[in-house]
Amino acid sequence: MKILITGIAGFAARHFLDYLNVIEPGSEVAGIYHETLPEFDVKKLGNLTITFYQLSLLEKDKFAAVLQECKPAFILHLAGKSSVANSWKDPSGSITDNTNFFLNIVESVRVLNWPCRILSVGSTEEYGNANAGLPLKETDCPEPASPYGVARVLQQKLVAIYANSYKLDIVHTRSFNHIGPNQKPEYVIASFAKQVVQQDMEGKKEIILKTGDVNVVRDFSDVRDVVKAYYQLLYKGRKGQTYNVCSGNGYVLKDIIQLLAKKIGKPVHDSIDEEKFRPAENKTILGSFEKINKETGWKPEISIEKSIEDIIEYWRGILSDIAKKQ
Amino acid sequence: MKILITGIAGFAARHFLDYLNVIEPGSEVAGIYHETLPEFDVKKLGNLTITFYQLSLLEKDKFAAVLQECKPAFILHLAGKSSVANSWKDPSGSITDNTNFFLNIVESVRVLNWPCRILSVGSTEEYGNANAGLPLKETDCPEPASPYGVARVLQQKLVAIYANSYKLDIVHTRSFNHIGPNQKPEYVIASFAKQVVQQDMEGKKEIILKTGDVNVVRDFSDVRDVVKAYYQLLYKGRKGQTYNVCSGNGYVLKDIIQLLAKKIGKPVHDSIDEEKFRPAENKTILGSFEKINKETGWKPEISIEKSIEDIIEYWRGILSDIAKKQ
Repeated sequence: MKILITGIAGFAARHFLDYLNVIEPGSEVAGIYHETLPEFDVKKLGNLTITFYQLSLLEKDKFAAVLQECKPAFILHLAGKSSVANSWKDPSGSITDNTNFFLNIVESVRVLNWPCRILSVGSTEEYGNANAGLPLKETDCPEPASPYGVARVLQQKLVAIYANSYKLDIVHTRSFNHIGPNQKPEYVIASFAKQVVQQDMEGKKEIILKTGDVNVVRDFSDVRDVVKAYYQLLYKGRKGQTYNVCSGNGYVLKDIIQLLAKKIGKPVHDSIDEEKFRPAENKTILGSFEKINKETGWKPEISIEKSIEDIIEYWRGILSDIAKKQ
Repeated sequence: MKILITGIAGFAARHFLDYLNVIEPGSEVAGIYHETLPEFDVKKLGNLTITFYQLSLLEKDKFAAVLQECKPAFILHLAGKSSVANSWKDPSGSITDNTNFFLNIVESVRVLNWPCRILSVGSTEEYGNANAGLPLKETDCPEPASPYGVARVLQQKLVAIYANSYKLDIVHTRSFNHIGPNQKPEYVIASFAKQVVQQDMEGKKEIILKTGDVNVVRDFSDVRDVVKAYYQLLYKGRKGQTYNVCSGNGYVLKDIIQLLAKKIGKPVHDSIDEEKFRPAENKTILGSFEKINKETGWKPEISIEKSIEDIIEYWRGILSDIAKKQ
């Protein structure tokens, strides 16, 4: 496939490329990044031709130029300011930047009249306090509980408008929490795993974990499953439609902590870090993947145990490398 | 009351002041405007003390300074880029400016911890393609059909978030189309009335009206009723809640045209102006005012006939003045 990916330096993009390298060798990828590009293992992605472009998605003209140069059949829009915590600190930045990233893409496609399929990646945060019951379904009315959630609701509404009014071939996901190797430790499971592995390597007999509220329930998917869902939706999603990408399983954070303890073979105790508390947080998030399953056949395949194992292994590698350099 | 009003130079603000002058003499008003301030009939507003401030609501620090100076008990946020047509031409401007106007107000109130009641004025455009049936109720899930509609949905979601998470005392309206004297001819009924009066004064025997789609149904309220609703909501609206402000009557535009014809005593024919067509338009918009009526007692009182009469009279006055000056 000939695909343009925004946010190429990010967590999901890295795993999408791994998958594309296997599932569709010979694919041509135009990757847009903004700040720094992590080192890609070029050997591992040997079946792909990747061209990188450095620009901010706020620079509409530059984006339009890349679009005209690359002529992609697909756009996978992964870039975004996706931190809920930061959206409380800077609601305007979260909302206007995420909106303008998205609008600059769809407006460029519209104005240039470029025929391509766009996948807009949204978030479980769109649901917020939606009160139609669990599991959350695409037809539930979103009641976002954070500025970031509002930004993604906005994007989902714009997807519907651009598909209906301008006939753009665009599909939206509501992606629930995803985890896996290479995720930054700003995210909860990566943060837990890093702390656990670090203290284990320091020889601690008992591990003390700094956490937020560990009684919340979250629907975690492995990122390697999530990118397969994106691949399916790029080909099979219906124009203007929104799809949950989730596991359908609710995990209490404290159970995940016990899973980490089991894998590492040491007791892990949690200790509340007030800074990790947010002004509003949903107790339980749990989605239904019935729609995407019916329409594309996708379903999650990687168990939470396997995810946690691989995440621990990833952090062992990272922290060993750092230790060696010191 | 001690009230800060944004968009003081606008259509609704002018009528709100007229009402406040009568209902609550002695009120102190801080009025924020951006570009030019129309001449106010100071005699007519003699019971009020009004101070004007010129600033853009994008200038957060200036707004915060006005807030600290005026110490209002109420904020009525009427300012906005409220043109649906322009939102198609500049979706980013419509969304980001409206959002930042709103955020700069609520963030200032939050950061300064200033205790006041805020009325956030939203729009019927939030409903868009909502499909729960007519009349539209506040509990229907918004499906905005224009970028402007998306901007107002965003605002409504932020009202809920700031009320829930930050305990701000804020209430939101979904204001349906409102009409009356002093409205700018960018709006449909003002445009029709101006054209009709102008051609009547030119001595035309038959009037040809440039229109968009005249088969759409809209829920028109008289602005003088609408500002009474705002006044009621400032005192009696419940924190975090959204209220329709509408007439509960659906008027087909072509019937309004016939009403204009009757009042002017000449036949009026409509002629489609392609430029007035929009990429997406709802055929029928009709709201329920049950919630605001139950909670505040407000109901619309001015008939459509009276509104149309007064609008014609207003345009006769304006166009006579212009004619005299020439």
